[in-house]
Amino acid sequence: MFVPGTEMTSEEFREFGHAVVDWIADYRAGVADLPVRGEIRPGRLWEQLPDRLPEEGESPAALLADLDRVIVPALAHWQHPAFFGYFPANSSLASVLGDLLSSGLGVQGISWTTAPASTELEQYLLDRLAEELGLPAEFTFPGGGGGVIQDSASSAVLVTLLAALHRDSLGAWRSSGLTGGEVVYGSTETHSSLAKAVRVAGLGHDGLRLVPVDPVTLAMRPDELAEAVAEDVAAGRRPVLVCATVGTTGTGAIDPLTEIAAICREHGIWLHVDGAWAGVAALCPELRALFPGVAEADSFCTNAHKWLMTAFDCSLYWTRHPGVLVDALSILPEYLRNAAGESRAVVEYRDWQIPLGRRFRALKLWAVLRWFGLRGLREHLRRHVALAAELADLVRSDDRFTLVTEPSFALVCLRAHTGNGAAADDRRTERLLASVNKTGQAFLSHTAVDGRPVIRVAIGGVTTESRHVLELWRLLREEFDRA
Amino acid sequence: MFVPGTEMTSEEFREFGHAVVDWIADYRAGVADLPVRGEIRPGRLWEQLPDRLPEEGESPAALLADLDRVIVPALAHWQHPAFFGYFPANSSLASVLGDLLSSGLGVQGISWTTAPASTELEQYLLDRLAEELGLPAEFTFPGGGGGVIQDSASSAVLVTLLAALHRDSLGAWRSSGLTGGEVVYGSTETHSSLAKAVRVAGLGHDGLRLVPVDPVTLAMRPDELAEAVAEDVAAGRRPVLVCATVGTTGTGAIDPLTEIAAICREHGIWLHVDGAWAGVAALCPELRALFPGVAEADSFCTNAHKWLMTAFDCSLYWTRHPGVLVDALSILPEYLRNAAGESRAVVEYRDWQIPLGRRFRALKLWAVLRWFGLRGLREHLRRHVALAAELADLVRSDDRFTLVTEPSFALVCLRAHTGNGAAADDRRTERLLASVNKTGQAFLSHTAVDGRPVIRVAIGGVTTESRHVLELWRLLREEFDRA
Repeated sequence: MFVPGTEMTSEEFREFGHAVVDWIADYRAGVADLPVRGEIRPGRLWEQLPDRLPEEGESPAALLADLDRVIVPALAHWQHPAFFGYFPANSSLASVLGDLLSSGLGVQGISWTTAPASTELEQYLLDRLAEELGLPAEFTFPGGGGGVIQDSASSAVLVTLLAALHRDSLGAWRSSGLTGGEVVYGSTETHSSLAKAVRVAGLGHDGLRLVPVDPVTLAMRPDELAEAVAEDVAAGRRPVLVCATVGTTGTGAIDPLTEIAAICREHGIWLHVDGAWAGVAALCPELRALFPGVAEADSFCTNAHKWLMTAFDCSLYWTRHPGVLVDALSILPEYLRNAAGESRAVVEYRDWQIPLGRRFRALKLWAVLRWFGLRGLREHLRRHVALAAELADLVRSDDRFTLVTEPSFALVCLRAHTGNGAAADDRRTERLLASVNKTGQAFLSHTAVDGRPVIRVAIGGVTTESRHVLELWRLLREEFDRA
Repeated sequence: MFVPGTEMTSEEFREFGHAVVDWIADYRAGVADLPVRGEIRPGRLWEQLPDRLPEEGESPAALLADLDRVIVPALAHWQHPAFFGYFPANSSLASVLGDLLSSGLGVQGISWTTAPASTELEQYLLDRLAEELGLPAEFTFPGGGGGVIQDSASSAVLVTLLAALHRDSLGAWRSSGLTGGEVVYGSTETHSSLAKAVRVAGLGHDGLRLVPVDPVTLAMRPDELAEAVAEDVAAGRRPVLVCATVGTTGTGAIDPLTEIAAICREHGIWLHVDGAWAGVAALCPELRALFPGVAEADSFCTNAHKWLMTAFDCSLYWTRHPGVLVDALSILPEYLRNAAGESRAVVEYRDWQIPLGRRFRALKLWAVLRWFGLRGLREHLRRHVALAAELADLVRSDDRFTLVTEPSFALVCLRAHTGNGAAADDRRTERLLASVNKTGQAFLSHTAVDGRPVIRVAIGGVTTESRHVLELWRLLREEFDRA
């Protein structure tokens, strides 16, 4: 018995809430038995839905039935242990519960004053995580910096660019906008979010330099960066931002931060380090050692919603110049003025981001940190790095495959090797990718290196174990022969 | 018994999930008995948390205990029936369950192919809602337009501005960026997100014209807009975008869309209508009639996460020019290429927004639409509009108060009236606001009109009933005498 059409009673919420929790428990328990991604025809879902929205309310039981009937069959299952595509988007069950608490509280953090706990828990967690990641004290609030949760690394690099433009213009950017000579630097392997940020900020593609990479490591070449900067300076343009990457999306390349930082220092350029996927590995000292120089960055970003078990969206961003960032983004209309905000005793996170509204996202991160503990998180990261090394050894041992780059963290990049030349290898690689995915027993995605197709195996699912990687290896070899 | 440090088992998730659901049920059942916002000292929360993150995992029971101990006392309770501040941020319990399903599925919609159901359900719901809101067919996918869920109205106006810049430049903006003469128009009452978008896009404050408003309605004056546009055109500048508002944040003013649209048409300017708060009222034909002319807009935005019961974030955005928007924002790196996307048979929502990643937000909206049904949603909106009219009558009947504007939808704006002149009224208004909020029995926020303080009563909480409004009225009169 229930009364739809008006707000659920507590009793109804208990009943339906337990049913939804049980549905998720069943989904997660059974997801490994589903095809990671079945054949899905565009438009099929739409055809299965009614022509009109319901006039009268319905029981949530009908919603759950439709999830089974039309939604689940039309998804790639990112929480499947054999999902190796793109990068992991771990939505651990602890984070699911933390996020549920956030919706349940339903508070809105447009100001410190409208949800103090939301702002302060976020500050607290970002400070604590900065320490555990080995970031410099200048990235924490007591050290004059600070961290914030952004929705994504794309937004993080955008706000960074805006802060850098503001700083570079000595404030003129706020009033008169761009002057036309601003230049931003990444490498040819930098994530497309940099190009998007440059476009959004109004520089146009002409304001972006994609510096060449080392042909073996695929990391940015500092000599090429220095040359590009020198050229731009000589031509009267203004270098504003360099975005270096720890763990590129294509192959997991690590840009040489120390050398890049020296160039940035020399020219007063803001250095942003994008560690969207791999940055969280800094929780483990031996992995942190793989990317020295982060301490010299002006800002750093890594996504808890990729490899750190936290449901999307939860991108962790720190800067040593929060004053510049806030100055770049703040606008204070009357209806948001309040005593606490004006006292400057509190942080107003709305001025650290593009949107005004803010969900209480710190709760899902807190739930993850407390359920797993730091030890659990380190073990999770190390386990996947070890599995990648294991897979890389298998690839090396089989002459039907080539390792395109050395494995980076938990990413393995490979292609087929036919012995019949590059063109044949490329065709076989493409067919192999398609046929593995078609089995539904694993899901892989690709990139290109030197214009040639490469299969990426991104290990890192929260339930991915050795047997899933070994099963993938069996599948790769089996499908190689068929492809 | 539980094993933290590794992913929760299904059994653990069931047990802890039920406990979290019960915690939320208890919180919602008891929220009306909490102070809407207690006295909260900056930094207090932080002091109550340990110096280090836990090394070993903990049971979620410890998390729930800390919620009670440190989090709940440090919040304003937006789901409290006597929360009348800002605008409502209804997180109805149905939407909480829909959002829980989204976290539980944990899929990532970076492409249609990575979560087809996420993209298609969103398209379906936005098309159906466009019909129910009376939007023109040109805003739906079959009509050549389309809708999308943005995180916020701030992001919606930003992507709109980018699309308008792209269109205005005939594509040159993508490559060479801004030229320096672009101009954007709002009114002096337009939400600050427009100024933020103008800044983010690199125009600087000089590129924004805030057109004067009518002194009584506080709506944008079309004659002033026409004059500003003519001046800019004469000076060789390029009018790109007009942002008109249905229900301004200050007082709920409604800009005259039909007259504004005519000016935009004449000059080829993109007209965006921001109905962040009030736009959802279009579900009711008699409320829709209050803002004719939406059909002539190029784009329209309204937030389901304000008055339409859906947990943040869920901002609904439609445009009749999705091709322009996608062209403005799309960037296609190799690792995101896929057959479905290249076939153009599917929608790639990443190109409709700033971030790359996408949560399955349509589920929480679907849960709301199905639980309440259209009838339930209309009743919810009408009930609050009626309560606002009731409160406005009470204010009119008492000479200690002045109605600053006629009530707009469910927003009532008032100030104290002392009989001792404007300065005394203003002081009393400010003290009244502070003392009502201090009681913890209701929460109000303010705005300024003509530089004078105004108390805003935004009715619209999902559990707000007549008795809560009457109780607020009692409180206002009681505190007037004390203030």
